[in-house]
Amino acid sequence: MSERILDPSNVTPAALPRLLAAFAANAVERDKRGGTAKRERDLIRESGLLKLSIPCELGGAGADWIVILDVVRRIAAVDSSLAHLFAFHHLMIATVQFFGTSQQARRAMEKTAQEDCFWGNAVNPKDARLRLRRDGECYRLEGVKSFCSGASDSDMLVVSALDEQQKLKIAAFPTRRGGIRIHEDWDNIGQRQTDSGSVSFDDVVVSNEELLVSPGPLGSPFAALRPCLAQLILVSIYAGLARGALEASVAYVRELPSDGAARIGSDPFTLHTAGELFAQVSAAEALAGRAVQSFQQGWTRGDAITPQERGSIAIDVATAKVASARAALDVGSRMFDIMGARATTARAGLDRFWRNARTHTLHDPLDHKLKELGEFALNGVYPTPSFYS
Amino acid sequence: MSERILDPSNVTPAALPRLLAAFAANAVERDKRGGTAKRERDLIRESGLLKLSIPCELGGAGADWIVILDVVRRIAAVDSSLAHLFAFHHLMIATVQFFGTSQQARRAMEKTAQEDCFWGNAVNPKDARLRLRRDGECYRLEGVKSFCSGASDSDMLVVSALDEQQKLKIAAFPTRRGGIRIHEDWDNIGQRQTDSGSVSFDDVVVSNEELLVSPGPLGSPFAALRPCLAQLILVSIYAGLARGALEASVAYVRELPSDGAARIGSDPFTLHTAGELFAQVSAAEALAGRAVQSFQQGWTRGDAITPQERGSIAIDVATAKVASARAALDVGSRMFDIMGARATTARAGLDRFWRNARTHTLHDPLDHKLKELGEFALNGVYPTPSFYS
Amino acid sequence: MSERILDPSNVTPAALPRLLAAFAANAVERDKRGGTAKRERDLIRESGLLKLSIPCELGGAGADWIVILDVVRRIAAVDSSLAHLFAFHHLMIATVQFFGTSQQARRAMEKTAQEDCFWGNAVNPKDARLRLRRDGECYRLEGVKSFCSGASDSDMLVVSALDEQQKLKIAAFPTRRGGIRIHEDWDNIGQRQTDSGSVSFDDVVVSNEELLVSPGPLGSPFAALRPCLAQLILVSIYAGLARGALEASVAYVRELPSDGAARIGSDPFTLHTAGELFAQVSAAEALAGRAVQSFQQGWTRGDAITPQERGSIAIDVATAKVASARAALDVGSRMFDIMGARATTARAGLDRFWRNARTHTLHDPLDHKLKELGEFALNGVYPTPSFYS
Amino acid sequence: MSERILDPSNVTPAALPRLLAAFAANAVERDKRGGTAKRERDLIRESGLLKLSIPCELGGAGADWIVILDVVRRIAAVDSSLAHLFAFHHLMIATVQFFGTSQQARRAMEKTAQEDCFWGNAVNPKDARLRLRRDGECYRLEGVKSFCSGASDSDMLVVSALDEQQKLKIAAFPTRRGGIRIHEDWDNIGQRQTDSGSVSFDDVVVSNEELLVSPGPLGSPFAALRPCLAQLILVSIYAGLARGALEASVAYVRELPSDGAARIGSDPFTLHTAGELFAQVSAAEALAGRAVQSFQQGWTRGDAITPQERGSIAIDVATAKVASARAALDVGSRMFDIMGARATTARAGLDRFWRNARTHTLHDPLDHKLKELGEFALNGVYPTPSFYS
Repeated sequence: MSERILDPSNVTPAALPRLLAAFAANAVERDKRGGTAKRERDLIRESGLLKLSIPCELGGAGADWIVILDVVRRIAAVDSSLAHLFAFHHLMIATVQFFGTSQQARRAMEKTAQEDCFWGNAVNPKDARLRLRRDGECYRLEGVKSFCSGASDSDMLVVSALDEQQKLKIAAFPTRRGGIRIHEDWDNIGQRQTDSGSVSFDDVVVSNEELLVSPGPLGSPFAALRPCLAQLILVSIYAGLARGALEASVAYVRELPSDGAARIGSDPFTLHTAGELFAQVSAAEALAGRAVQSFQQGWTRGDAITPQERGSIAIDVATAKVASARAALDVGSRMFDIMGARATTARAGLDRFWRNARTHTLHDPLDHKLKELGEFALNGVYPTPSFYS
Repeated sequence: MSERILDPSNVTPAALPRLLAAFAANAVERDKRGGTAKRERDLIRESGLLKLSIPCELGGAGADWIVILDVVRRIAAVDSSLAHLFAFHHLMIATVQFFGTSQQARRAMEKTAQEDCFWGNAVNPKDARLRLRRDGECYRLEGVKSFCSGASDSDMLVVSALDEQQKLKIAAFPTRRGGIRIHEDWDNIGQRQTDSGSVSFDDVVVSNEELLVSPGPLGSPFAALRPCLAQLILVSIYAGLARGALEASVAYVRELPSDGAARIGSDPFTLHTAGELFAQVSAAEALAGRAVQSFQQGWTRGDAITPQERGSIAIDVATAKVASARAALDVGSRMFDIMGARATTARAGLDRFWRNARTHTLHDPLDHKLKELGEFALNGVYPTPSFYS
Repeated sequence: MSERILDPSNVTPAALPRLLAAFAANAVERDKRGGTAKRERDLIRESGLLKLSIPCELGGAGADWIVILDVVRRIAAVDSSLAHLFAFHHLMIATVQFFGTSQQARRAMEKTAQEDCFWGNAVNPKDARLRLRRDGECYRLEGVKSFCSGASDSDMLVVSALDEQQKLKIAAFPTRRGGIRIHEDWDNIGQRQTDSGSVSFDDVVVSNEELLVSPGPLGSPFAALRPCLAQLILVSIYAGLARGALEASVAYVRELPSDGAARIGSDPFTLHTAGELFAQVSAAEALAGRAVQSFQQGWTRGDAITPQERGSIAIDVATAKVASARAALDVGSRMFDIMGARATTARAGLDRFWRNARTHTLHDPLDHKLKELGEFALNGVYPTPSFYS
Repeated sequence: MSERILDPSNVTPAALPRLLAAFAANAVERDKRGGTAKRERDLIRESGLLKLSIPCELGGAGADWIVILDVVRRIAAVDSSLAHLFAFHHLMIATVQFFGTSQQARRAMEKTAQEDCFWGNAVNPKDARLRLRRDGECYRLEGVKSFCSGASDSDMLVVSALDEQQKLKIAAFPTRRGGIRIHEDWDNIGQRQTDSGSVSFDDVVVSNEELLVSPGPLGSPFAALRPCLAQLILVSIYAGLARGALEASVAYVRELPSDGAARIGSDPFTLHTAGELFAQVSAAEALAGRAVQSFQQGWTRGDAITPQERGSIAIDVATAKVASARAALDVGSRMFDIMGARATTARAGLDRFWRNARTHTLHDPLDHKLKELGEFALNGVYPTPSFYS
């Protein structure tokens, strides 16, 4: 029954099932290959789902975050690299809404809707090597950024850099601009098709209107929702990975010869393990669902949102993150206890769930999230907004 | 923000806060004493909350299970024995609705609303020592039942017994009937004021109208919701225990001299532990909330409910049970890692959370629930309805 | 086979089995009662085991720490309060050896051997309320100490106090000295017969020869072994508690009516749980055994011991502490999953394992031990000697 | 100090360090490549370590199992595939000693010592597709075996097959025999250079003297030690994997730029995690050490060993297996929490620890081991000897 309540499948975009089938068909092979999933990125472009978060009046699909993040979660169950690229696209659009003026946001969304722009990022605020300096009427970017998921094959880019006063500035502009070089240097054990390599900027011009300075990064309680959304995307991907791993193990068993499937499906300890993993996935999904609803309420509050309301959302998101990160890691590893030794064949590529979860859950330390939850539980103090909290 | 969604506090009965304060005031002392909480049971009687689940048109408060089980959870956070008695009262009324005719249910509820009856139970289906035999127009009960929570000081009793064909029969009738003796033989390490002792029946007359035979125990998909409700009551009590333990540890720290409180409240490992417990409690509550909503939907479906819908509810309830039972046990034990050695003083009685959780979570084995979840996850099979599934 | 290697039962004192039987006979009843276990303390006195750690040439039994701590562990499996008192007696004698001159140690041990002295403690270095001031040729103690396990009914006392320069001084002298009052104010949820209450000192005279100042507290690498021994006593008690809890659950099942015992003994999940607990107890014992051997080697090194050797012992002890503390807590709680709901009867008193473990494992935070282990694992740094490391 | 007791480094073969260095130099690259590690196998041949388990009087090194399994563990810390091949070589030699006559054993060992034979296996008793039939004076093998670790590039082979009475027969003979084809079909996510593919037998002649029928498989309590040794090899590899993963994470941090290393090495939560992993590895090693000592004692007992002694060894081995398998899996995954996101670079290949552990720990279900431990703990029953117990 709960499915009917929490599952927004009635509003699932019609294009999604076809996409999921296409992604699933070669997910194992693409995981081995790594690099840019050009064909799959174009399928996303064609699907219209890049407009999902854009209001109808600006040419978009007008979906709320409950729907968008559900799509993210469903893609992640099949291919967490593509889910990451898709989600970050919408995060980048939202970043313009959080940090820029309403005019900037409107322009960015209209352009995206018209041209099916795919957004990528070069935001990583922990990498201080990219600098922004004023040059008359405009600005110049010089340096390099690491962990730029989705920059390859993107049409628009959101970039963070330190200005001459060591202040973090964020800008949004087209990727095809002179001086930008996107390096194909992402070759990691997981999330292998997120193109999370480095981007170098060689005297790149940025105009005044491309800078997002009003209210600017974390410049208001509403702008401070941006990290909540970024973290909620991680939550959705982790929850999707956990569910995907469980489903993959069930599918594996069902496709075994019938005596093997029957033996596994009737072993009390295997059933017990499957029950454990199911319970863990369910907890992750329930907390993720709660956090998504919280965030959506905060989003609709807009500039009226209070720091307390923002804090309450951050707590819900952090709670969901702890549960979903652990579920993704555990299910990605323990799914093999259900399937047995033969499931370790490289052909099946079933280790990708753990590798993806392991890579992605290192985005920022879970221990810090637990400490923040403790600050709230014990001292009643909400997390101080930052790019990770 | 999530609180606003899931928290039915806007419909919390006005009488509840006063009750909670009264229960909290002497919970430690009553835990030590054990026995029947006569005064507190009378406070419940006076509060009107015994009518909570009875429709307005029959003289009740017409609350749905979302509200009723929220009240159970809140009482459990303060005193899980009283929560158990209160919840079982409503379970007994629902039992008449599940197993009896609509006329029997109507009569039972009207009587309860008029006379503020407190219902107790002698149902334990695992104890086969109580027998029912036909005697002309009526029936006779002979034997003994164990684990009869709430029988002491009750006005009405629901009783299960094996008939001459070894079939389980269930009857509801007034407690003050000739031949019934309620033994004060409950002295256990936890849930000490649930009066879960034994009741003996010496040639007790039961009339035909008091037998609940249509549809009878688990006699229809709707009747098979009864164990779901029974299990959901356990879930609510466990979730309340977990939350109550966490809150008790926070209150303990806040009441320390300021240097002690500051030392604990700033230690990174203590905050980390508090965060862990908070996350665990939150997961239990989220799954409990989801299960309660599932159950309420099924309840309103009435006789239209399908076995699949019933199965789906049973899965949600079992999932919540795993999470909440573990949360109650873990928080009840690890709360001391937040508070430190001095919190073990017997005066504070803070071990009661673990003792209550430990006692109550043995009601039926969690391992069987996990196996059921595995049957569903791996084989797509719903639990077969039984008094524990 | 391992038993033959690690088990020093061939040197187990002959008096031990009788003592264990006596302690077991009323352990549940004494746990309920609390207070001083005068009769059992006298049984220990009569057993001769108070001389266990004293060299033969001084009238003792000349046992090494492998034997002594094995006795501690075996007593703890039956009654962890008495194990604590017994172990602390030997720790106090060792304290004179660690911190005092060889002459002071010799005198203390001869006296103990001749008079069967039982040593108690008022050492708790975290309680700064006890002060020592010089008064001509002697000293005066004024103030109060908490957590003075074993002070009641003791013959000799080891006391720590801050002197006029805020330096920790430690002295050993007879308990029956003017101005000392031992308060019966220990009433906690576990370790109820350790008499760990407070002692007040009202102008108590201490002579020069009673002060242990050469090398003094932690005054040499050998003296710095004292906290290793103190922690190793905790390890032995925790390991004994874990083993005792497991054995109690097995005994409980074996004493059930045969159909109940057979049902439990053939349930796959119950066997699985019993296997988990057995594995956990075994790990605690293996690490405890290794740490005890390490410590004994360090002890025999005497003043030749290097800081590195001392550090290595401290790491072995800390590792064993983590495993044994968790084993005691987990087995104390999960043992009920083997036994089922009826085992919660207060008469059986089986919650005492968890209550004892919970109380005693709060002695000092496990998280700090884990951090110390991490400092060693990651940075190669040994713990800085302190009263807890 | 414990190192001095448990560490047999004083008898570590002189050739080992050079081998370990050679293996470490290209372990990551070979893991990627998979296939037969021909060069490394030849290095092992040249090292003389293939004679380690052969008595001096037969031309071997005369090491006991404490030394041999310590070498296995140390190799596994660097390369668990090579450890597996090396260990199985000695298991195969021992198999002739367990199942064959003393004359067969003597001949096999002399030949191995003289010719530096490398033994491989085609034993997998769960694969019933290989059949043995009598053909006059000799026998014929027909069919296929899977999971034949070490068959590639081997000189001698131990093979199991079902005879015409469906009885398991085991034979040992040279690998280069007509009709044997070793397939290069092992391509799995871990243990990638164990060549654990399939071998087909096309009318392969086996002589009478090559059959190991006296006492035959598990044909005596001493022969029943064979699965104990096989399981103990798994234990040693798991323990080595766990230690190797921890050491790899420490080495990774130490090689970071100094500010990165300092930040990680001083973070309390990272230290806490490192402490957790250290404690877990230590427990695995302590239990492994105990089990190895047990086994060695049983081995020296020879045919005098009783079923009880064999049972006691099996329990020690199973206990160590639970701890070491979990340590290998957990440390292989959580090591990244120490190192952070950048350690997921494919170049470092640090996911190989988890992949190796995950693949190898599926050899046979841990749950069954836990059930066996529970049978012993609860019912006092030793495991029934089988190829996995």
